[in-house]
Amino acid sequence: MGRRLTHALDVHRASVGDELAVGLLNGKIGTGKVIRIDEAVLEMDVLLDREPPKPLPLTVILALPRPKVMRRALYSLTVMGVKRIILFNTARVGKSYWQTPFLEEAAVRKQLLLGLEQAKDTMLPEILLRKRFKPFVEDELPALIKEATPLVAHPGAVGVCPVSMKGRVVLAVGPEGGFVPYEVEKLTSLGFVPVNLGERILNIETALPALIGRLF
Amino acid sequence: MGRRLTHALDVHRASVGDELAVGLLNGKIGTGKVIRIDEAVLEMDVLLDREPPKPLPLTVILALPRPKVMRRALYSLTVMGVKRIILFNTARVGKSYWQTPFLEEAAVRKQLLLGLEQAKDTMLPEILLRKRFKPFVEDELPALIKEATPLVAHPGAVGVCPVSMKGRVVLAVGPEGGFVPYEVEKLTSLGFVPVNLGERILNIETALPALIGRLF
Repeated sequence: MGRRLTHALDVHRASVGDELAVGLLNGKIGTGKVIRIDEAVLEMDVLLDREPPKPLPLTVILALPRPKVMRRALYSLTVMGVKRIILFNTARVGKSYWQTPFLEEAAVRKQLLLGLEQAKDTMLPEILLRKRFKPFVEDELPALIKEATPLVAHPGAVGVCPVSMKGRVVLAVGPEGGFVPYEVEKLTSLGFVPVNLGERILNIETALPALIGRLF
Repeated sequence: MGRRLTHALDVHRASVGDELAVGLLNGKIGTGKVIRIDEAVLEMDVLLDREPPKPLPLTVILALPRPKVMRRALYSLTVMGVKRIILFNTARVGKSYWQTPFLEEAAVRKQLLLGLEQAKDTMLPEILLRKRFKPFVEDELPALIKEATPLVAHPGAVGVCPVSMKGRVVLAVGPEGGFVPYEVEKLTSLGFVPVNLGERILNIETALPALIGRLF
């Protein structure tokens, strides 16, 4: 039995005539009226009549976390509506993290689909992997932050993370253990503004929603 | 080898003369200078000279999530500085959730200690379990929300969750699947204001930091 059929049976306890929330990947959302359901098949009359929730005008640039954390981060960033996530390398990223099978396309896609389902969204985020800090920051990042507010989350920063931003934001978040000074300097030299979330050092899974909850 | 000694050896790669961040449970924080470290013993000269980070003026009243989510929620609420967490029952809380060994005192304490370590905090949160919705809401909650702003996170709410609150807040968060209408009415009749986090339905692990990130 497929995951979605199991969900319809076990969580929704769906039966003929029930309406379920449905969506077409990268398309509209709507309702599906169950016309047949058993252990093998779910058939619905599907009406896709609404746009999915609005994407956040946010690009997250995240130092690749260890695999378990990375998976949860992809999930919750997708739930929150982030549509471009760049996983990049920094000095304190474990080299082995780049070898995890959880970075393979199918594994990443699975997390994104689960996140979309949670948020009743359909627009698949774009995930980019950048294994070399310097070429990424020097050659790609300047174009990415054009017409956006570039912020770097940094526990030592003077300013507190702003709230309720109106325009596009590019948010850089370091690894557990933080950016090394060279990396923060590199980012600030491009225009990134260091911001903090108070005196506590938050773990990545907590910091990402806390930052995004403030920003939008 | 104990968990903290392992951490000092494997993560900090501590050797004699190094300074580590230390704290005394429910006391001050400071630094420990390593004077001996091997596979069996870590000895430090400890100086406890600073107050731990400020607690958030926040009580979180959370419908008991399923065990895996509950553990992560306790961890991240502790990381963020919440000092009173009440796990309570609502119609959509699975009855079996109350049976989990992860609600036993030692298991809860472990999550809280890990959260304190992450945040370099020492003040253990108070965790209360309330297995009956009505007596809790009717007999206890009115006193808890005195001189506080009571908010209930509710996806259907008209108002958006406020930002940068100054005073005390009591935040009620429902289960996956939400509060039933009777529960929201009960809370609003006490003065709780329903607030949303946008049109997306966030999972608990994402919603809690997003809400708290906005509030403080």
